[in-house]
Amino acid sequence: MKITTPTLLLNTSICKQNITRMAAKVKAAGLTFRPHFKTHQSHIIGRWFKEVGVDRITVSSLTMAQYFAADGWDNITVAFPVNILEITTINTLAQQIQLHLVVESSDSILFLAQHLTAPVQVWIKVDTGYHRTGIASDNLSLIQQLITQIEEADKLHIQGFLIHTGHSYRARSEAQILAIHQQSMTRLKALHQHYPHLQYSVGDTPTCSIAKDFSPATELRPGNFVFYDLTQRAIGSCQTEQIAVALACPIVAIHPQREEVILYGGGVHFSKDSLEENGLKHYGKLIDIEDQLWGTIQPDIYVKKLSQEHGTLHVPSSKIKDFKVGQVVHILPVHSCMTANLLKRLVTLEGEEIGMMNF
Amino acid sequence: MKITTPTLLLNTSICKQNITRMAAKVKAAGLTFRPHFKTHQSHIIGRWFKEVGVDRITVSSLTMAQYFAADGWDNITVAFPVNILEITTINTLAQQIQLHLVVESSDSILFLAQHLTAPVQVWIKVDTGYHRTGIASDNLSLIQQLITQIEEADKLHIQGFLIHTGHSYRARSEAQILAIHQQSMTRLKALHQHYPHLQYSVGDTPTCSIAKDFSPATELRPGNFVFYDLTQRAIGSCQTEQIAVALACPIVAIHPQREEVILYGGGVHFSKDSLEENGLKHYGKLIDIEDQLWGTIQPDIYVKKLSQEHGTLHVPSSKIKDFKVGQVVHILPVHSCMTANLLKRLVTLEGEEIGMMNF
Repeated sequence: MKITTPTLLLNTSICKQNITRMAAKVKAAGLTFRPHFKTHQSHIIGRWFKEVGVDRITVSSLTMAQYFAADGWDNITVAFPVNILEITTINTLAQQIQLHLVVESSDSILFLAQHLTAPVQVWIKVDTGYHRTGIASDNLSLIQQLITQIEEADKLHIQGFLIHTGHSYRARSEAQILAIHQQSMTRLKALHQHYPHLQYSVGDTPTCSIAKDFSPATELRPGNFVFYDLTQRAIGSCQTEQIAVALACPIVAIHPQREEVILYGGGVHFSKDSLEENGLKHYGKLIDIEDQLWGTIQPDIYVKKLSQEHGTLHVPSSKIKDFKVGQVVHILPVHSCMTANLLKRLVTLEGEEIGMMNF
Repeated sequence: MKITTPTLLLNTSICKQNITRMAAKVKAAGLTFRPHFKTHQSHIIGRWFKEVGVDRITVSSLTMAQYFAADGWDNITVAFPVNILEITTINTLAQQIQLHLVVESSDSILFLAQHLTAPVQVWIKVDTGYHRTGIASDNLSLIQQLITQIEEADKLHIQGFLIHTGHSYRARSEAQILAIHQQSMTRLKALHQHYPHLQYSVGDTPTCSIAKDFSPATELRPGNFVFYDLTQRAIGSCQTEQIAVALACPIVAIHPQREEVILYGGGVHFSKDSLEENGLKHYGKLIDIEDQLWGTIQPDIYVKKLSQEHGTLHVPSSKIKDFKVGQVVHILPVHSCMTANLLKRLVTLEGEEIGMMNF
C-alpha cells in the first residue's frame, strides 16, 4: 500500500506486545483488567484484547459504548460523569449489555433513579488529587449520601469507586510517577477502610505501567499504553521501542536556509498537543523505518510548528540534503489518543487497513 | 431538535451576513473572490456563496477539492504546496474541473511536467513575511527559473503568485493588522513591477476583514470569516456579534468550591487551540442564547482546561448557582476551523442539521 497522504501507521507487533505485557501484569497482580478503548477506537484492535482474555472494557462516551457493543462487548464502563441528557441511549444500551456508569452528584442519581428502564451498574467518581472532577475521597458524608441514594434506587447497583490519577501525566520520572501513585493509593486506602466490600477501579497509563502495588484497587483501566507516545516516554511510562504508532507525512517543501522541511501533516492530523523536553517545545519526532520495522529515533529532528495542514520539521543543516519533496517521513506523535481520534484510520506496516470508529 | 451531546451550533443569519459582507467588499474593490472553504467544509454553506455570485473556491486538500467538485464547483485552488504523491488524484480532478495548484520548487514542477495528463493552472507560492513556506518574494532568480520551467511544460499554465500573510494572526489591533498588511503588499508590489501581467492572490481573514487597499492583489481568499471566532475577535478582525458558531456542551458535574463546572466537551471537540487575553489563557467563552438568538458574552466565564472529553469551565462563585447538571451551555470557540473539523456536523439554531465533509 503506497502512502500518499498523512497516514497513521501501526506497528502491529509492538501494539500486541503492549497488550500482552499489560494483561500479564494485571493478571499477576490478581486484578481485573478493564482496558480503556478510547485510544484505539477500533473493533480489530479490540479483538486482540479478547485474545488475551479481556472480557470487559472502558470507553469515554455512550457512542463509543454502542460502537463496541456492536462488536460483541457486553460489559462496558463509560468512564465519564454520566450525561443525563443521553438517557434514551443509556436505556437502550442497558437493555443490551451490562452497562456501567459513573456518578458524582445527587442530582444525576435521582434523575437515573426516575428514568432508567433497565438495570445499570454505578461507580462513584472520587478525586484523590487530580482535581479534574469527582468527589474528594475524604468527603465521607457526601459519599455516604450518594451510596444511600443508589441503594434506594431500584435499577441502580453500586459497584464501587472509580478514580483517575491524571496528575501522573505531570511526572517526568518513574520516581515521580510512584510518588503520585502512592499518595493516590493512600487516600484510596482511607476510603477502603470505610467501604471494604466495594470495588476500586484505577487506571492511568503512567501508574499502570510503572507501579507494582495497586492495593486497594480491584480493577485497572489504562488505555494509552496500547500505542504509547512521546508524552508517555517523557513521563517515564515507556521506552521509544514501545511506541506503536507513527504518522507518515509527505514532504511538500524544503527550506534549507531556515533548516525547515514542510510536511503535509498539521493540527488536523497530529492535534495541537505539544511536549516540552529539555526546554524545547515540539509536536513530534522523526523515526526511521528500516525493513518495514521501526528504526532509530532522530533526536535532533522534530516538528517545531503546526498550522491546520502544515507541519514544520526542524532538520539540522548537516542532514537536510537527505530530505526530498515527495518523500514520506515518519513522526512519533506527542499524544497518540488525539492523533488516532483525528485520523480515524490506521494502516499496519504490512499495509493492512484497520478501521476505527468514525462518527 | 434536542441537544444531548457536544454540538456545533450555527447562527445562520450571522453566517450569511458574513458571506454577504465579504462578497460585497471584494466586489467593491474590483477583485476576484475565491473564498477558502476549509473552515465550513460543507456543501450547503458552499451554496450560500454561490447565491452571492461566487464561482471559484479555495480548499486545503485534494480530498476537499473532490468533495466540492462533487457538488458542482468547477474552478478550485488547492492552496497547499502540491503533494506530488497524489498525482493520480490530481490527474483525475484536472480532467473534471479547472484545477489550480500551488508550487514552490523546481522538483515539483518537473514532476508535474512529466506526469500530468490534463492541464493544470499553477500559482507560485511566495513568502512576504510569514516564513511558513513559499519562496522569498525578492528571490527573483529562483522565481524566474520556476516561471521558465512552468512555461516550458505543456500541461502547466502560469496564473501568478499566491501568498498567505499568516503572521496577521499575531496582531492584536486593527493598526497592527494594517501594518503587517502594508509590509506584505509593499513586498508584493516590488514583485509586481517585474511581473505586471500575472495575478496576485492574497487571503487571510484578518487583513481581508480590515484592510481596504489590496493593490497589487487581483484575488482574495479568506476562509475563517464565514464563522469567525474568539481569536479573530482578539486580533481585531471581528466583533462578538459576527461570530457564527458556538459549541453546545452538556454540564456533567459542578464543583462550587473550585468555581468549576465540568462540561461534556473536550479537546476532541474544541481542539486544543487556546487564546491568551489580558494575561488569561482560555479555550472558549460562554455566550447566552436568548429566544433562539445569540445573547451576550459572559466575559468572566471561560473554559480554563481541556482534556480529551472534559472541559473545565471557570464560573465565579456568585454565578455558579445558575448552573445545573443536565443543562446545556454554549461556548464561543477559540478557533472555529479546528472545532468544525472535529465536529464534522453543524446544527442551526432552528434545529436543521448541516452536513460537512467526513473523511
